[in-house]
Amino acid sequence: MYVIITYDIGQKRVSKVCKKLKEYLRWTQNSVFEGEISKTKLLECLAALDNITISSEDSIYLYQVDNPKNIKKKVIGLEKSFEDLFL
Amino acid sequence: MYVIITYDIGQKRVSKVCKKLKEYLRWTQNSVFEGEISKTKLLECLAALDNITISSEDSIYLYQVDNPKNIKKKVIGLEKSFEDLFL
Repeated sequence: MYVIITYDIGQKRVSKVCKKLKEYLRWTQNSVFEGEISKTKLLECLAALDNITISSEDSIYLYQVDNPKNIKKKVIGLEKSFEDLFL
Repeated sequence: MYVIITYDIGQKRVSKVCKKLKEYLRWTQNSVFEGEISKTKLLECLAALDNITISSEDSIYLYQVDNPKNIKKKVIGLEKSFEDLFL
């Protein structure tokens, strides 16, 4: 399946969340990760995030499309790379 | 169709982009809008954004799913409302 994950996480936990998501998905943009992932790996990823986040303060939005052919992506303007974040 | 739009926009233009997207889609979270929209309306929205943004500095990511039934959304943790931004 193809997933997009966006998040809004407390400052103290955001880098941990980002690091964990990088193990499973591709960074797209500020607070957005995406990519193809199996159900098992996704559940593993969500369980790991659950250990890092505080559910009363943090938000994670998961969009799931079973067949990757059903989602089209278009980038308008600048396509950023993960490295840009650290320059 | 169902679309998710995420953006990374220069500080000076971000509130204009946010205001414009609110006319067409539902605010989800920090830099994320989503909702059902017709192709005509989407093109109108993108043209309006094109007038506001600077393509060498700003990024807009558009994810398009023709049949809304093909996308599943799950919120983990806190579900935020647009009003929370201004409290």
